[in-house]
Amino acid sequence: MTLPEHPHVAVVGATGVVGRVMLGILRERGFPASQVTPLASARSAGKEIAYGDTTLVVRELTAASLQGVDLVLLDTPDEVAREWAPVAVEAGAVVVDNSAAWRMEDHIPLVVPEVNAHDLQGHPGIIASPNCTTIGVVLPLAAIHAAFGLESVVVASYQAVSGAGEAGVDELREQVAKLAFELDAMGAGDPAGLSPQPRAFPAPIAFNVVPKAGSVKELGYTSEEWKLLHETRKIMGLPGLKVTATCVRVPTVTGHGAAVHVRCTSEVDLDTAMAALEAAPGVTVTDLPTAVMAAGKDDSFVGRVRIDPGDTRALWFFCTCDNLRKGAALNAVQIAEHLLPS
Amino acid sequence: MTLPEHPHVAVVGATGVVGRVMLGILRERGFPASQVTPLASARSAGKEIAYGDTTLVVRELTAASLQGVDLVLLDTPDEVAREWAPVAVEAGAVVVDNSAAWRMEDHIPLVVPEVNAHDLQGHPGIIASPNCTTIGVVLPLAAIHAAFGLESVVVASYQAVSGAGEAGVDELREQVAKLAFELDAMGAGDPAGLSPQPRAFPAPIAFNVVPKAGSVKELGYTSEEWKLLHETRKIMGLPGLKVTATCVRVPTVTGHGAAVHVRCTSEVDLDTAMAALEAAPGVTVTDLPTAVMAAGKDDSFVGRVRIDPGDTRALWFFCTCDNLRKGAALNAVQIAEHLLPS
Repeated sequence: MTLPEHPHVAVVGATGVVGRVMLGILRERGFPASQVTPLASARSAGKEIAYGDTTLVVRELTAASLQGVDLVLLDTPDEVAREWAPVAVEAGAVVVDNSAAWRMEDHIPLVVPEVNAHDLQGHPGIIASPNCTTIGVVLPLAAIHAAFGLESVVVASYQAVSGAGEAGVDELREQVAKLAFELDAMGAGDPAGLSPQPRAFPAPIAFNVVPKAGSVKELGYTSEEWKLLHETRKIMGLPGLKVTATCVRVPTVTGHGAAVHVRCTSEVDLDTAMAALEAAPGVTVTDLPTAVMAAGKDDSFVGRVRIDPGDTRALWFFCTCDNLRKGAALNAVQIAEHLLPS
Repeated sequence: MTLPEHPHVAVVGATGVVGRVMLGILRERGFPASQVTPLASARSAGKEIAYGDTTLVVRELTAASLQGVDLVLLDTPDEVAREWAPVAVEAGAVVVDNSAAWRMEDHIPLVVPEVNAHDLQGHPGIIASPNCTTIGVVLPLAAIHAAFGLESVVVASYQAVSGAGEAGVDELREQVAKLAFELDAMGAGDPAGLSPQPRAFPAPIAFNVVPKAGSVKELGYTSEEWKLLHETRKIMGLPGLKVTATCVRVPTVTGHGAAVHVRCTSEVDLDTAMAALEAAPGVTVTDLPTAVMAAGKDDSFVGRVRIDPGDTRALWFFCTCDNLRKGAALNAVQIAEHLLPS
């Protein structure tokens, strides 16, 4: 199912952090939309959003507001996407969904275009875009797999607060304002008496490391940690790949990081690994990939590539990726670009 | 070589972050010192430091100022420790050194008392205390080794700025003050135009993740990453243990974290792992070990213990530990306590 040359695009969740980035990216990239309609919950209907030189008025997401829409970019909670994606398909639209609602359904492609654009062929109207942490990691991982074959992957993440939306950013800002003035090494920045108490995260996030991103599921792993495992396998077409992760929230605003230890099925060497990463689409190799360096940029920034000193089949890399752009909004728009007539 | 019942203690580097914590810990724990003398470089001589209800005057570190001292607690740059530890031993003192100068010398014990106090036997006058990140990780690691036998260890660290001393804390404070007011998800907190430029760290640390702690050495690994490997092997008496690490600086003030993936020589199970950690001296098991939770406390806080879903011989844990206390000052004082007559 291909889009018309100039599709009418609806962005659902347009007032959220990712929704706003999505609108910006559609413009930046000159996406050939005949019309862009921002949709959201009734609460946000009537709000105005800048779109280049024009202003768009947010409408409520209803079956009526989806009429005549060719492409729906969904960035909403899972339960909203679960309910509305089929309604949009029924109305004749193609849906690219950023939520986790459809990602693991067998018949729904889960796509990072640089890695598995071929999975878009014969899609059933809904296409899923992966979790933000997965996308940043899978781009370099695909290059390493092509070079050496992957056997197992161990990931420790460094996730930014905007991954939890506006509420996450607000919580960091609010706590930093309260604690920063008393910053010194001797236990200052102490959030014990914080008021209000943390809401977006399970512990204070300012000047802290909170080793639990997502909610706890089977075997004590969080939703984020399971997503990294299952989504990586599906995107790479490697259902037996061993992937295990610890997902950690850190006080960065935007830009998810990951320390990735990879064991391969063949001996690794640094020159081949670097050449593979340098050539990988969507990857920028750099000496020191920081969260801030990735924020506002399109690629997964990869560095600190080193052979494991105790294992000639293993190597490390560190990567950072803008969780709002390539981790969400940009990847969805790139998927849509692949559906345009060529 | 045992200390007298009431040793004269010199704290060298007394005006530094760790030195001040060391003085506090000597008092808190009622260390039976006959006298405590703070020593430092000529630049700091004459400074006054509170010690309980009294005030101590900092003296310059010289051969003369070491006369009559029974115990020297050294927290200085490596080159100072390299030069002065033998001078102190010559003057009749026992030296506990927090620097990296002596740690890997074969004849020098490298000690975390809960793990290898036995290595203190027959010490040659100098005893080394390990790197801050190593100490927090090795406490739970020893418990896992006793339960299942260690085969390989993969560590990703989350290191606080006070690990770089006062300069690290100052740099975070200064950058936070400049950036916090513009904190929002859309690329604010942007340190591109920061003035002054970063000095203590290789990139801005406020609202950032900097995946390079220490200086780069062989094979692209940093000094911190090599310390974790070599020191863990020596403390645990496992010269063939595979240890590999990525050491990352994060914008926390005090409390180093580590995500640790361990492969064992036998099958692991969660109940046995938890029981081993609960029983381990120096370890507090908790649901969510954060950096802030560990700051100001003595133990390594350990949680998120999970069996690897793809490997029945592997498990994860996350740990946090006050890098100034157990990671430096406290461990040195505990070593000294083991040298007191029983």
